[in-house]
Amino acid sequence: MSAPFRHRLRVRFHECDPQGIVFNAHFLAYADIAITELYREAFGSWQAIMDSDAIDMVVAEANVRYLAPLRFDEEFDLVAWVTKLGTTAVTTLIAVEREQTTVAEVTLRHVVVDAETRAKTPIPDALRAGLERYSA
Amino acid sequence: MSAPFRHRLRVRFHECDPQGIVFNAHFLAYADIAITELYREAFGSWQAIMDSDAIDMVVAEANVRYLAPLRFDEEFDLVAWVTKLGTTAVTTLIAVEREQTTVAEVTLRHVVVDAETRAKTPIPDALRAGLERYSA
Amino acid sequence: MSAPFRHRLRVRFHECDPQGIVFNAHFLAYADIAITELYREAFGSWQAIMDSDAIDMVVAEANVRYLAPLRFDEEFDLVAWVTKLGTTAVTTLIAVEREQTTVAEVTLRHVVVDAETRAKTPIPDALRAGLERYSA
Amino acid sequence: MSAPFRHRLRVRFHECDPQGIVFNAHFLAYADIAITELYREAFGSWQAIMDSDAIDMVVAEANVRYLAPLRFDEEFDLVAWVTKLGTTAVTTLIAVEREQTTVAEVTLRHVVVDAETRAKTPIPDALRAGLERYSA
Repeated sequence: MSAPFRHRLRVRFHECDPQGIVFNAHFLAYADIAITELYREAFGSWQAIMDSDAIDMVVAEANVRYLAPLRFDEEFDLVAWVTKLGTTAVTTLIAVEREQTTVAEVTLRHVVVDAETRAKTPIPDALRAGLERYSA
Repeated sequence: MSAPFRHRLRVRFHECDPQGIVFNAHFLAYADIAITELYREAFGSWQAIMDSDAIDMVVAEANVRYLAPLRFDEEFDLVAWVTKLGTTAVTTLIAVEREQTTVAEVTLRHVVVDAETRAKTPIPDALRAGLERYSA
Repeated sequence: MSAPFRHRLRVRFHECDPQGIVFNAHFLAYADIAITELYREAFGSWQAIMDSDAIDMVVAEANVRYLAPLRFDEEFDLVAWVTKLGTTAVTTLIAVEREQTTVAEVTLRHVVVDAETRAKTPIPDALRAGLERYSA
Repeated sequence: MSAPFRHRLRVRFHECDPQGIVFNAHFLAYADIAITELYREAFGSWQAIMDSDAIDMVVAEANVRYLAPLRFDEEFDLVAWVTKLGTTAVTTLIAVEREQTTVAEVTLRHVVVDAETRAKTPIPDALRAGLERYSA
């Protein structure tokens, strides 16, 4: 089993709500950053792998489990694994970890589409090979 | 079966990303607005019903299914039903509808906590009674 | 002197920061909404007037004076006047008013550019005529 | 003359609008991050210096000059100088630089207030001494 991808961030003031904690929607923005950075490590950049096979990837489903509050100025890691590589869909699990505590778990299911027609298309070989390295 | 709650909004420019569509995280912000407005109709305001029973409600889980793109300046309805009233948790389904098309479905599970101790506590009677009106 | 443009909104929870007030950057998002709605009233839509003269408008400068806090769930009006119609630039003043209190004043200077070349171009006649109605 | 404060960031996807560039309001969020990081370097943290003198600082005025577009995934520096230390107000200039290009300049005027009464109060000595190091 491969090591997961890990990317450190710090909570910004405007990401927090009047309860003093990161607003619930913002965990999906964090997950989006995790995907961008994982694809940077795997392929040079998100755009590079999309362009190389004339594809795009769209989010079909997102799930967030909120386990503990995360506060302004706290540092945290985005830890990501590819949990499923189907025919046309990629599922990624992103854990949001503050020190030893998992504060949230985000699951994203992306579907690969043809960049022109926007129709579902199989995961290209280069994309699959690059992501297998992060498979749980 | 009761009629669902319905609240109309229009997509703001800054809610859209470089693909020209509402950014995926923003559907959770829309869902938060739906909850605020449903509780306004049911109880006068979110804060009113929280204060009346010394409770708070926190989001424990969120799920979004993305079905179609939603674009800048389009009008849409947030349509909400309470789909489950458990012992301590309330599940709400929020459909995001543009004319006859459901562009996304958000499911939120809130847990009722004691405002002081932050421990889980049963749904108070007044909250339960008010929400039953929106039960699917 | 013409009546100003007026558009009512309500503060959303996620627009507020841990101090419980609208985050300072968000007043520029409110100003953007005011512009969108003023152009809708004046021209049908922002895009309609841009397309009719093959132009675009970009923000060159923004100024915000913060006069009083604005809180979650409060209703407020965006009140807008066109304060200067130059050769290539349009200056708009947007007051953010909660009942009798002006909580912030935003000034935006937009520059008209050719949609293709992105070079500065004079304000087209139709745009000028439509905006004169909102001149202070 | 002191060296300015410098902090590197990368543009996040959701900070960009349908024109593919950072949304104008977001430059004030970047400026807020610059302030947070400058005060971290100067005082350990923003909160530390606020607490040590029982003060708070509120933004009274913000100005943004937009000079060039900034795009998704580009790296940039926030470069900050304290340009004025008055009796009760601190003015900070934050340049947003992408390589050799200044893409925006933000000026923020903060006013020091008593943490309890919220009335204007003179800049405490420790705050003044720490900020002088960043004076232009």
